[in-house]
Amino acid sequence: MSFRATVLTLYPEMFPGHLGTSMAGRALERGDWSVDAVQIRDFAHDRHRTVDDTPAGGGAGMVLRADVVAAALDHAAPQGDPRPKILMSPRGRPLTQGRVRELAAGPGAVILCGRFEGVDQRVIDARELEEVSVGDFILSGGEPAALVLLDAVVRLLPGVMGNALSGMHESFENNLLEHPHYTKPPVWEDRAIPPVLLSGNHGAIERWRREEAEKLTRERRPDLLA
Amino acid sequence: MSFRATVLTLYPEMFPGHLGTSMAGRALERGDWSVDAVQIRDFAHDRHRTVDDTPAGGGAGMVLRADVVAAALDHAAPQGDPRPKILMSPRGRPLTQGRVRELAAGPGAVILCGRFEGVDQRVIDARELEEVSVGDFILSGGEPAALVLLDAVVRLLPGVMGNALSGMHESFENNLLEHPHYTKPPVWEDRAIPPVLLSGNHGAIERWRREEAEKLTRERRPDLLA
Repeated sequence: MSFRATVLTLYPEMFPGHLGTSMAGRALERGDWSVDAVQIRDFAHDRHRTVDDTPAGGGAGMVLRADVVAAALDHAAPQGDPRPKILMSPRGRPLTQGRVRELAAGPGAVILCGRFEGVDQRVIDARELEEVSVGDFILSGGEPAALVLLDAVVRLLPGVMGNALSGMHESFENNLLEHPHYTKPPVWEDRAIPPVLLSGNHGAIERWRREEAEKLTRERRPDLLA
Repeated sequence: MSFRATVLTLYPEMFPGHLGTSMAGRALERGDWSVDAVQIRDFAHDRHRTVDDTPAGGGAGMVLRADVVAAALDHAAPQGDPRPKILMSPRGRPLTQGRVRELAAGPGAVILCGRFEGVDQRVIDARELEEVSVGDFILSGGEPAALVLLDAVVRLLPGVMGNALSGMHESFENNLLEHPHYTKPPVWEDRAIPPVLLSGNHGAIERWRREEAEKLTRERRPDLLA
């Protein structure tokens, strides 16, 4: 069974977006995965199709209503749907490559995109939404974050990248950032490729790459080594 | 002068993508910001329009050539262009809301999107590219990351969100995740809005929100408190 994503959003026209092009787009056409965008507004129950209201306790912004969001979720993922239900939110746990791998190995995901000030906490609790953040910054809504999450997952699905992934070193393997890369020409703007890489000594090359990866990680991301 | 983004990519058709819709799209139409996508391949100098080659020292994947990338960069950002030059890369420093604010206050950004295994380190050094990561996961390329960075920046530009931002509490203010939100109805599926929020006691409401924000941050993101 192929990976099936359902995205709940006020902007269904944002999907599949860039996931409809390049390798992800070809895999989408082949049916290696699918994405449906569900308009949350279709589950409003008044004639103005209201999805949000003012925050209890006062303050600026608007909050997505629990009843409307629950109706959309229950429609998209009826009881027994095995897919995890994810809320894209800067309050969530940071997305990791480990979680991406788990998602890619599963049946898909139901992804709720927040907008405005947030989502009523009761629907997060009642429907046991997994809050996931793509970083310590604020987006216009959950949609760009959902596209990033799906991009990371889709490239790991069987067949999507063919052999392109095999044997590749990647950042976050062994909690290290990736070592520097070089390619032809051997000298460019008076800058030479480090001689060890042209030495043919595979042991020395592996050692150099490992040391460079460790050095870079210490400089930029000591948190990964902790 | 409005914020001006230039994106160097092998997939110019991915831009403006979702940034052409919603508030960002309307701001783009008004000229509050602009984005040009430059095809890196147009700066290849052989008849096959080659942009990449095998990694020095061996290994899988392909590396974007320094000479081709430099030609594209020098065209997009001639000497004296005041915009920061950013490489989207999982090896970069994590994007923060503070860096987003700095970028939004500046003249724009030149953004290089990596693909394949990486970019020749010499052009990163020679053109002093700022490597920026949107998270500890691997994307199909820099394009989805660039769209996320631009989304975060554009919503802060003058006029883009109107009054929608004024007075909003946001995650990462004071290094805290945001407190829970509630809105009508007062009771939903037997779940009531916390009584303090309906008390009208503004001091108590502020205290409750602060305590909830601190509790959530301790649970999910103790690193933000460190």
